[in-house]
Amino acid sequence: HVDWDAAAAEKGGYDYFMLKEIAEQPKAIADTLLGRVGLDGQLVLDEMRLSDEELREVDKVVIVSCGTSFHAGLIAKYAIEHWTRIPCEVELASEFRYRDPILSRSTLVIAISQSGETADTLMAVRHAREQRSRVLAICNTNGSTIPRESDAVVYTHAGPEIAVASTKAFLAQIVACYVVGLYLAQVRGTKFGDEIATVMDQINEMPAAVEKVLETIEPVRALARTLKDKKSVLFLGRHVGYPVALEGALKLKELAYMHAEGFAAGELKHGPIALIEEGVPVVVTVPSPSARHRLHDKIVSSIQEVRARGAHTIVIAEEGDEAVVPYANTLIRIPQVPTLLQPLVSTVPLQVFACEMATVKGYDVDQPRNLAKSVTVE
Amino acid sequence: HVDWDAAAAEKGGYDYFMLKEIAEQPKAIADTLLGRVGLDGQLVLDEMRLSDEELREVDKVVIVSCGTSFHAGLIAKYAIEHWTRIPCEVELASEFRYRDPILSRSTLVIAISQSGETADTLMAVRHAREQRSRVLAICNTNGSTIPRESDAVVYTHAGPEIAVASTKAFLAQIVACYVVGLYLAQVRGTKFGDEIATVMDQINEMPAAVEKVLETIEPVRALARTLKDKKSVLFLGRHVGYPVALEGALKLKELAYMHAEGFAAGELKHGPIALIEEGVPVVVTVPSPSARHRLHDKIVSSIQEVRARGAHTIVIAEEGDEAVVPYANTLIRIPQVPTLLQPLVSTVPLQVFACEMATVKGYDVDQPRNLAKSVTVE
Repeated sequence: HVDWDAAAAEKGGYDYFMLKEIAEQPKAIADTLLGRVGLDGQLVLDEMRLSDEELREVDKVVIVSCGTSFHAGLIAKYAIEHWTRIPCEVELASEFRYRDPILSRSTLVIAISQSGETADTLMAVRHAREQRSRVLAICNTNGSTIPRESDAVVYTHAGPEIAVASTKAFLAQIVACYVVGLYLAQVRGTKFGDEIATVMDQINEMPAAVEKVLETIEPVRALARTLKDKKSVLFLGRHVGYPVALEGALKLKELAYMHAEGFAAGELKHGPIALIEEGVPVVVTVPSPSARHRLHDKIVSSIQEVRARGAHTIVIAEEGDEAVVPYANTLIRIPQVPTLLQPLVSTVPLQVFACEMATVKGYDVDQPRNLAKSVTVE
Repeated sequence: HVDWDAAAAEKGGYDYFMLKEIAEQPKAIADTLLGRVGLDGQLVLDEMRLSDEELREVDKVVIVSCGTSFHAGLIAKYAIEHWTRIPCEVELASEFRYRDPILSRSTLVIAISQSGETADTLMAVRHAREQRSRVLAICNTNGSTIPRESDAVVYTHAGPEIAVASTKAFLAQIVACYVVGLYLAQVRGTKFGDEIATVMDQINEMPAAVEKVLETIEPVRALARTLKDKKSVLFLGRHVGYPVALEGALKLKELAYMHAEGFAAGELKHGPIALIEEGVPVVVTVPSPSARHRLHDKIVSSIQEVRARGAHTIVIAEEGDEAVVPYANTLIRIPQVPTLLQPLVSTVPLQVFACEMATVKGYDVDQPRNLAKSVTVE
C-alpha cells in the first residue's frame, strides 16, 4: 500500500517518528550550531534586530515557554546566569501573561517554542512587547508567528519534528539557549573570546557524545520492558539534572500515561520520600564527581536513602563514576562531559525509556492521547 | 493509661494532632497578625535590624525554603511583586545553595522555615550572608538558628506544630509573607497608608473566613472516603491557585502515599492531559470570577476539558460562582475573599482531604513514613 510505504520511508526505517527523531539528535545539535561563528571568530545569531548597546543594557532575562520547552528554559537559566551574571527567571508562559510580571525596556524576554505558534507563548511575547521589553525567539519553524513578532531569532535547525512528544527540538533548544547565553557574554564582555571559544568547542563535541549514548541504549529499552507493570516512576536530579528529571517524567506521562514526577533531589526529604516503597523505580541523574563533588556526594546519599527504603534505583552516571555502583539496581552510563552540557546526554536515555514503555504498553508513540503537536489555543 | 490520657488531652479531643492543628488555623492567622500595627498606624515587624534606607535599596527579593514553606513562598511572590513592584524569585533552598545564585547587598533574601532549623534553608541563609545580602527570616520557633542568623525576623505565631505535615504553620507563613510585603510597600512608598490599611483589614477577616470553611468541611471528608481506591489525584490551579495545587498534592503524597501532582492549569495541554482517563480525580481551585474574569474563564475551560475526558472533577470555587456548576462532579464552596487571599481558604479543604484519605487508608496521620518534622540534615 502506497501510503504505508510513504510513511515508512518518512520514518527512515524506524517504527515511529519519535525513534527516528531521537536518532537524529546528533544532527539536530550540529545543525543548530552551524554557522554560529563568523570569520572574525565572533558568534552570530540568525536574526538580530537588537544593537549591542541594547543587549548591554539588559538587566534581567525572563524565559517564557511551555511543556518541554519550559524544561529547556530551566536548564538554560543555569548557563545564562553562570556566563553572564544577569539574573534569569524562567516562567510558564500560561502563568506569566496573567500575573502582571515586572518587565521593563531592559528586560530581555526569551520565548522558546518548537512550532513558533504556541498560543500561550505568543501571548506572553505580545505582553512583553507591550511593556517595551526586547524579545528573542528560539524556534524550530522558519517564518512562524513568534519569530515574526520578535526582535531577534535563533532558529533551532532540528528539522521537522513529527512525533508529538518533543525530543530533538528539546536538545536543539538547549544548544540554542547556550549560544544566546554566550552571545550575551560576548557582547557584554563577561567572558573573554577564548573562553567563549572553549565552550563552543565543548558544545561542538556534543553530537559525537549523543551518538555514543545512542549506540549503548539497548539496555534502557530492555529495562523499560521489565518495568512495564509499575504504577509510577520517580525522577530525581540536582542542578541542571533537576529539569532533566522533570523532562524524563513528562515524557513518561505523555507517552506511557504513567504517574511520573520529577523532583529536585534535595526536596525528597521534605515530602516526596513518603512515596518510596518496595519496588518503586527511581531514576536519578548524577552530576559529574569531578566538576561538583559536593553535589555529587549529596545525590549519592539521596540514592542510598531511596534504595534503603526499597526503591529500584536506575542511576544515570558518567563513565568512571564508581561511587554510585553499590547503590544502583540499574546503571546507565553516559560520557563524561562538562557540567552544563550533561543534560544533552542524560536526557537521551529518558526519551528512549519513555518511548519503549509506551511501545510495550501498546500505545501510539507518535500520537499520544489528548495531545496536539502544536498547541495553538491558550 | 496515663500516657494515653496525656496524649489525648494534648490533642484536645481530636484523633490526630493534624486535625487539631487544622482547626487551630483561624487562631494561627490571628496570632500572626497580632501587634503588627503600631499606635501611629504603621506596620511593625518582630525584629528588624535593617534600616528603612536599607530596605529602600532592595532591588530583588529571593525567597528560599523547602517543602510546604516553598509553596508559601510561591504564593508570596504574587503579593510581594504586586504590592512593591520589586522582582521576587522563589527558590528551593537545596538548589539555591549550589547553583551560584546572583546575590548582592541590595538583595533581600527571605528564608521561610517552620522549625527555624531546616538545614537546607540555613545553608542558603549563610550563603546569602556571605554574599552580603540582607536576610529576613519567617519562622515559627522563637530563638531558633535561622532567626538568630538573620537580619530581621517575622515570627509566625502559630503555636507548636506537632504533626509532621505542616498545616497551620503554612497559613501563618503566607500571612507573615504578606505582612512583609506590605511593610516593604510602606517603607518604599509604593502603597499609600490607607491602601495598606485596607489590605490589613482584609487579612484580619481571614480567621473568620477560615472558620467558615472549617464548619462546612464534612462533605470533603466524605469525598475522600469515596475516592480511597483511586491510584492518583491531580491538582490544578492558576495564579496563586497554582501553589495551592502543589500543596494539595504534597499533602496527599506525604500522608496518603498517593501519586498526586499539582499543575499550572495552563500546562495541562502541554503534556499532563495525557494522564486524564475515566475516573481520575482532578481537584481544581478556581479564581474569583469577579476579580480576574479572564483567568476564571480559562480555568473553567480546563475543567470542561478534563471532564470531557472522563475525569472526576472536584471543584473548589467561591460562593456564587455559578459558571463552574455544570462541570463539577463535586463542588466545594469557599467564601468570597480578595484574589491574593484565596489560598488561605482554598488550602483548607485540601488539608482535610489528605488527612481523611490517610485515615481511611489506615496510615499514621501525624507520623507519615520516612518523614521527619524538622529536617536538620542537608
